[in-house]
Amino acid sequence: MEKKQNVSRAVIQRLPRYYRYISALRAQGEQRVSSRKLAETLGLTASQIRQDFNCFGGFGQQGYGYNVEKLCEGLEEILGLNRRHTAVLVGVGNLGRALLKNFNFEASGFKLLCAFDADKMVIGHEFGGATVRDVSELYPYVSEHKPDIAVLTVPHSIAPDLARGLVQHGVRGLWNFTGVDLHLDNLGVPVENVHFSDSLMTLCYQVNQIEAE
Amino acid sequence: MEKKQNVSRAVIQRLPRYYRYISALRAQGEQRVSSRKLAETLGLTASQIRQDFNCFGGFGQQGYGYNVEKLCEGLEEILGLNRRHTAVLVGVGNLGRALLKNFNFEASGFKLLCAFDADKMVIGHEFGGATVRDVSELYPYVSEHKPDIAVLTVPHSIAPDLARGLVQHGVRGLWNFTGVDLHLDNLGVPVENVHFSDSLMTLCYQVNQIEAE
Repeated sequence: MEKKQNVSRAVIQRLPRYYRYISALRAQGEQRVSSRKLAETLGLTASQIRQDFNCFGGFGQQGYGYNVEKLCEGLEEILGLNRRHTAVLVGVGNLGRALLKNFNFEASGFKLLCAFDADKMVIGHEFGGATVRDVSELYPYVSEHKPDIAVLTVPHSIAPDLARGLVQHGVRGLWNFTGVDLHLDNLGVPVENVHFSDSLMTLCYQVNQIEAE
Repeated sequence: MEKKQNVSRAVIQRLPRYYRYISALRAQGEQRVSSRKLAETLGLTASQIRQDFNCFGGFGQQGYGYNVEKLCEGLEEILGLNRRHTAVLVGVGNLGRALLKNFNFEASGFKLLCAFDADKMVIGHEFGGATVRDVSELYPYVSEHKPDIAVLTVPHSIAPDLARGLVQHGVRGLWNFTGVDLHLDNLGVPVENVHFSDSLMTLCYQVNQIEAE
């Protein structure tokens, strides 16, 4: 897979949406998909989709449509979904449990090794196949097992210290649900900050627009 | 507030990030902020930020920086955060509870009226100040109280039918955590589909890139 340098964050953020849709087509047994069809479904322009794919050497003939299987494999390769990365989750409250029980980590490229919490009531329990360990074992565990990333579902007040500690012990990426913005520049590793509020405010805007029409 | 027509979805999706950052500046007592500073913090270009703001008539003098208070109020107005929209939540499992207990709906423009579930063990209980009602009362409640939006934290298998039912009973927007893509065209109301997997795949890509360097 040829890859151009300096692919923009905007392009990278569209790749999972492409992959989600195209892997659904694959599951339905579809063989080919046009950039026009992709564009309609994803609310983009066909030209933008072609440009995005060209960042990675394109994916075959445009007029004839894309081969679904090859496109899917190409996106898996680009995103690194087939590299068997590993993750630990810290904070087994309601959100942590929701992720452990219902979220398919493997489909997003990660094997979840285990979870950590300070609450004696949950330590030793299993949620979605992951055992909860005492958070006092977190840093020794990370040093020994070297998980690629940590999922942060702890209260926001402890997020910055925990993030720094995890990075110091070798974690190489953070999936951050704490509501505190953690930044790459401060930590030296990539962070994805999940802000539920952003999508709700976007919805608020749209509901307003309809009222105003 | 002057508003140009047909503001693109990409611009709209950036507004909550602007608002989040600028309201944090306001809370810290900052009076002015330059587009350069905004750009650095948010990982955008200063020119993109000025273009985005120009969709809404701009927000004052560029060279001198933006007035934080006015910018904040302008964004609240544009997003409709001050319109006292209302919401109900359907599905009080772990994710539903996490939202009820920890998510600040009012800061994103919504008053949460109550929640609904089918489980007799949670009906009548309160989470984060919201009472859980029997889901059999959902449609009569929606018809009577006319909540603007519904938050869907139910299993994905029941999401499409539930979404249609809610829209038929007058709900005007959906905040959808079920993992099933629900589309505006099918439903006739705006939907924000929250896909946790998108940000985790984006993180996977970034972790991979660092390995490849």
